[in-house]
Amino acid sequence: MGSLNSQENISSNLFTNPLDPEEFRRQGHLVIDFIADYYKSIEKYPVLSQVQPGYLKKRLPDSAPYNPEPLETILQDVQDHIVPGITHWQSPNYFAYFPSSSSVAGFLGEMLSSGFNVVGFNWMSSPAATELESIVMDWFGNMLELPKSFLFSGNGGGVIQGTTCEALVCAMVAARDQKLRKIGRENIGKLVVYGSDQTHSALQKASQIVGIHPENFRTIETTRSTSFALSPESLKVTIHSDIEAGLVPLFLCATMGTTAIATVDPLGPLCSVAVDYGMWVHVDAAYAGSACICPEFRHFLDGVEGADSFSLNAHKWFFTTLDCCCLWVKNPNALVSSLSTYPEFLRNKATESKQVVDYKDWQIALSRRFRSMKLWLVLRSYGVANLRNFLRSHVKMAKIFEGLVGMDKRFEIVAPRNFSLVCFRVSPAAINNKASSDQNGKRDYCCDANGDEYSVVINDVNRKLLESINGSGHVYMTHGVVGGLYMLRFAVGATLTEEHHIALAWKVVQEHADQILIKY
Amino acid sequence: MGSLNSQENISSNLFTNPLDPEEFRRQGHLVIDFIADYYKSIEKYPVLSQVQPGYLKKRLPDSAPYNPEPLETILQDVQDHIVPGITHWQSPNYFAYFPSSSSVAGFLGEMLSSGFNVVGFNWMSSPAATELESIVMDWFGNMLELPKSFLFSGNGGGVIQGTTCEALVCAMVAARDQKLRKIGRENIGKLVVYGSDQTHSALQKASQIVGIHPENFRTIETTRSTSFALSPESLKVTIHSDIEAGLVPLFLCATMGTTAIATVDPLGPLCSVAVDYGMWVHVDAAYAGSACICPEFRHFLDGVEGADSFSLNAHKWFFTTLDCCCLWVKNPNALVSSLSTYPEFLRNKATESKQVVDYKDWQIALSRRFRSMKLWLVLRSYGVANLRNFLRSHVKMAKIFEGLVGMDKRFEIVAPRNFSLVCFRVSPAAINNKASSDQNGKRDYCCDANGDEYSVVINDVNRKLLESINGSGHVYMTHGVVGGLYMLRFAVGATLTEEHHIALAWKVVQEHADQILIKY
Repeated sequence: MGSLNSQENISSNLFTNPLDPEEFRRQGHLVIDFIADYYKSIEKYPVLSQVQPGYLKKRLPDSAPYNPEPLETILQDVQDHIVPGITHWQSPNYFAYFPSSSSVAGFLGEMLSSGFNVVGFNWMSSPAATELESIVMDWFGNMLELPKSFLFSGNGGGVIQGTTCEALVCAMVAARDQKLRKIGRENIGKLVVYGSDQTHSALQKASQIVGIHPENFRTIETTRSTSFALSPESLKVTIHSDIEAGLVPLFLCATMGTTAIATVDPLGPLCSVAVDYGMWVHVDAAYAGSACICPEFRHFLDGVEGADSFSLNAHKWFFTTLDCCCLWVKNPNALVSSLSTYPEFLRNKATESKQVVDYKDWQIALSRRFRSMKLWLVLRSYGVANLRNFLRSHVKMAKIFEGLVGMDKRFEIVAPRNFSLVCFRVSPAAINNKASSDQNGKRDYCCDANGDEYSVVINDVNRKLLESINGSGHVYMTHGVVGGLYMLRFAVGATLTEEHHIALAWKVVQEHADQILIKY
Repeated sequence: MGSLNSQENISSNLFTNPLDPEEFRRQGHLVIDFIADYYKSIEKYPVLSQVQPGYLKKRLPDSAPYNPEPLETILQDVQDHIVPGITHWQSPNYFAYFPSSSSVAGFLGEMLSSGFNVVGFNWMSSPAATELESIVMDWFGNMLELPKSFLFSGNGGGVIQGTTCEALVCAMVAARDQKLRKIGRENIGKLVVYGSDQTHSALQKASQIVGIHPENFRTIETTRSTSFALSPESLKVTIHSDIEAGLVPLFLCATMGTTAIATVDPLGPLCSVAVDYGMWVHVDAAYAGSACICPEFRHFLDGVEGADSFSLNAHKWFFTTLDCCCLWVKNPNALVSSLSTYPEFLRNKATESKQVVDYKDWQIALSRRFRSMKLWLVLRSYGVANLRNFLRSHVKMAKIFEGLVGMDKRFEIVAPRNFSLVCFRVSPAAINNKASSDQNGKRDYCCDANGDEYSVVINDVNRKLLESINGSGHVYMTHGVVGGLYMLRFAVGATLTEEHHIALAWKVVQEHADQILIKY
């Protein structure tokens, strides 16, 4: 099994129906083995692809083939030409961005969804696709102890979107139209959207898409004093200033687990501010939200009950493959009012009975895949107990890495670690040859680099260190900048990662630091 | 293989890594067999699901399991509880809406995409994902003989979106911002979007999302005299009236293959009108565009050279599974200007070299799947020659069905058949007991029903006929209404459909007509 060299049956697909069940079976087994073999040998590839721009054009023909080619040839090309151009997000040595956590169950769910290949735009087009989604979104919401008002069982409800940006577009369009119905459509240019300088860029993009005036998009500055969380006081000041200028506060995105350092905005106090101004609050928990199925992390979601919508990406840290962004809203009618269309060709008795959910009215697109299948398979295949343990094991590995950083006096932790993300850098002391005198193994988070001309040098050292590490291909990490500090981000969560990979990664960091620091 | 009863290894997944390669292999083979068996036996299920709203809640537990469950149990539940709630879009007896055409190659491409599970937001995050997409979009564009200005090789370019609505949102945001940069952001309330009463509802939805004033969305009436195609003269009149009212024409969506009857708007003349007013023209060829890889159908695209963007859904009639909407634009910079964000965490040398495409700036979402993999597999596995033949075989089957309708004097064809869609109905003559005298087997398309009180009855007969047919479960068709006429739509394109299914479908129609007409 798994051999690409078998010539047997190579041309059997040429004259059969392109969905012939037996050909499906034969080729499907080949590809299962191909992917299983890929996972088995994944550590032999450089984690970050090392190809140069335009590499693939040189290797592929200029046009599609006129005649069919056998799967075996295609798989050989995948191996020879695609794999080198892949950055291996599933490698156990992948610690970049946030994880894109696969699992066997998530993969199988995607297979079943593709196999049925139904287009579940409304209930009638495939009742199971709609009903399973509503059911698993309530299951998952209960696991997260979301307030009942976000669940179908409490007159709210959940929907699977592709990504956070799509979820934000839907929530923002709903908020926009609600507001404009009150103040008049001609005032669209007065609406203001709020986030912090740590909020994901998806907020800005959603704001651009739904027609918010670009000058009315606010990124409120955060500071080290709040661990770069959005301050309710700063929000209030900004809102007041906007209102004085004749503008209308519309939408706040609070984040649970920011992109750079996974900090958590104070949800309760932010919602309290927003409610005074009739704003829609969305909580973006794209990465860290999943952790809240563990009781010890649930407190990070305290205050979510004041929000209007909440989303997390199950494809980040919850074992479904891309894409599976879970969005819950308190008032589904607000989505439906803005996103519903009911053309003649979709008219049907079930919709008219008002007994069913038609998810087309909860999202941008009409067509939709059967994505709940993979969430259902993940929940059932692993169960709540194991899912908690998987997440805890990632947090534990992050703690181990944090400990290793703490033991090397040349390095420092840059921001408090809440989940499975460690933010660290070569410390100024290491370059100043003061490492031995300044360090005591229990130092505070590093000092503010603002205004320090020295910070240019230290940032540059860390940038070079990261480039050197990633160029090696042994591990892959990415960077962040907060408060002027360039740092390395070590995000644990690739499913295959185990403790020995953490030790290896740290060894790689140290070796490259040895090389870089010798020059300073 | 394929047995769900094997107890062997049932608990082996409980203590292993959730992406363990050998467990992946074992379970992957099981699911391949499950899906192959499903295709093999697909004809035994009612095509349109016959369940009632709320059926699944009664069958599933109220919460996610605490402990893991074996795949074998889950697959048994898929069989027992999900399959009955599925409308079988892959059944050879599926003729509803437009097809959602699967293929072995499309499925395998999705598997590889899910297997690698890379998040290809920019070039660097997985160069192969970006480069393969650019390459296959040029391949496909060449197969369609798109003007070079839509291809990367001609300074345009293609991108794979999820759906037409997403493609329209992107194109419309680009058009909106281009226009507002000229006339001032404060004029957003003056922008007007144009389609016809046959344009897909995705246009209205996109328009709502990007902040076009709802009163500035125009659905221009079409008539039988143009086979319900959008008349350039009507467009011009509408535009003039808007300009006189102080509004600003922004965006026109022309359709190649409308939803109800697959008519083709006159692309060239419409583009000529639009260019005079500086409007963006999008051509939506969601269903019928694929046919243009056959030289004999390419003329339907004549005039596309005047458009700014063009899209078709490869997941409809081009053998990729959901979702794979191919969008080509002449001016990618217009998309990038509106959709680009460049936060710190995504900064990288490749982007800064300006030698690469970062597809995140061509779409709504940041994250994106490796969807080009399935288009590549479809193109290579079948080759241009076979792909043409597959599409031709569907058209041929539609012709056969059309012929069968023509031979039964109780029925009439309601609109000219261009592709693989046949629109027909029980004719007024059949009810009037005039069938034998009125019919000569070569009659024109039916008379206009407007103003005819008789049309209420005839529409009702056809509605009952469709309900009766779909209630049988033997085949599934949907309806359309144009010019007041209720008609049955018979869309050929499910991959498994062969000629004997056409004969069977017609027999089902006749039998149900026998039953219905007896009452009239």
